[in-house]
Amino acid sequence: MTEKNLTERNLLEHNFPERNMTELNMPEHNMPEHNIPELDEIKQKLRQMLTPRRFEHSVNTMEVCIRLAEKYGADVKKAAIAGLVHDCAKNLDKDDILPMCEKYGIIVDEIARSQPKLLHGEIGAHMAQELLGIDDPQILAAIAEHTLGRPGMDKISSIVFIADYIEAGRNFEGIEEIRKAADESLEKAIVAGIDSTIVHVLKKGQPLHPRSILTRNWALEKLKEQENQG
Amino acid sequence: MTEKNLTERNLLEHNFPERNMTELNMPEHNMPEHNIPELDEIKQKLRQMLTPRRFEHSVNTMEVCIRLAEKYGADVKKAAIAGLVHDCAKNLDKDDILPMCEKYGIIVDEIARSQPKLLHGEIGAHMAQELLGIDDPQILAAIAEHTLGRPGMDKISSIVFIADYIEAGRNFEGIEEIRKAADESLEKAIVAGIDSTIVHVLKKGQPLHPRSILTRNWALEKLKEQENQG
Repeated sequence: MTEKNLTERNLLEHNFPERNMTELNMPEHNMPEHNIPELDEIKQKLRQMLTPRRFEHSVNTMEVCIRLAEKYGADVKKAAIAGLVHDCAKNLDKDDILPMCEKYGIIVDEIARSQPKLLHGEIGAHMAQELLGIDDPQILAAIAEHTLGRPGMDKISSIVFIADYIEAGRNFEGIEEIRKAADESLEKAIVAGIDSTIVHVLKKGQPLHPRSILTRNWALEKLKEQENQG
Repeated sequence: MTEKNLTERNLLEHNFPERNMTELNMPEHNMPEHNIPELDEIKQKLRQMLTPRRFEHSVNTMEVCIRLAEKYGADVKKAAIAGLVHDCAKNLDKDDILPMCEKYGIIVDEIARSQPKLLHGEIGAHMAQELLGIDDPQILAAIAEHTLGRPGMDKISSIVFIADYIEAGRNFEGIEEIRKAADESLEKAIVAGIDSTIVHVLKKGQPLHPRSILTRNWALEKLKEQENQG
């Protein structure tokens, strides 16, 4: 398996499928048609892949995605499917995670190696393609990026990232601030969500993944730009 | 001036003098003799460069450096001088910081551009060489690294990094935890110090510099190794 060190010289060059990146950089009207199966068909298959509790979280996340996509003018169907499917790899057996990364050619950095749960988004993007027949690059990117985010991520990815924090079944210290931020702007909610994760990780004495720090810095920068324009 | 974006592909390749890095990688007995002026001579010059308040902080930091160097078996004279001199660029006029970076060829990343105070360590290393006649690479690295740290930094750098947080004149929420950690291990104190900085930066809604995150992750990893050996 390819391993990767998180040094300053060599940080996270491509931690999720390069293909998505390339296609995401294409203007929307030039995009080829991508296959998006119907929601009910996906739900049926997904129910077999997840515990009832995780399936419920997925449906809840989908509902918030629909609300945020309507509010912020994103493609509602794509946001709904990405939200529904984002955790499709979450109930993988712990011992299957690294072999799955090998199978899919996912590069594992040293933090992910010590916390393999961080990899379920990237594995999930591959599983969504292989098992659920989804090949829309925006949906796949949103699944891949939902744990750490990515500087420059698009609206669909931002919406799934936020919905995962605030869906109705979630309950943790500070969640009301993130919910309130999500009513104001996607960027505010991204910062509030990552802030709550950072505080949680500090309390547990675990390493912070630099990608989530870069995602937070990017969202702060966008907020500042909006304030300067406003 | 050279500017630098903090992207995943291109993160902080060399944010302080490359020369120091190279010499620091040399085994100690192969190192050329370096010039270290006497403490009193440095103090006299330094007093002219700093406000009385900043000079007092510098002397306090030096005192903690001496104590920690004795406790953890580092070169006491080098630690003392690095602690004394670490803030020699701190009272530069705000408008002089970026021109000084240009003069010294210091690469400015986008976070440092919006918070130029972050650059006083690197500028200080150059000023210590030019104005105070110090050319010992360990001392210069400790001055350059005292704000953000560096993964893999040596004992002298670690000691200055910590002493700057806990010297007798400091007083902020959580300082007692850092002082206690410094009695247990350098790595514990580095993590505790950076944790307190992170909480402070989150409260202010400012960007986090990924280098300090990498420094924290490195110290956590060293702690884990020590626990596994112990």
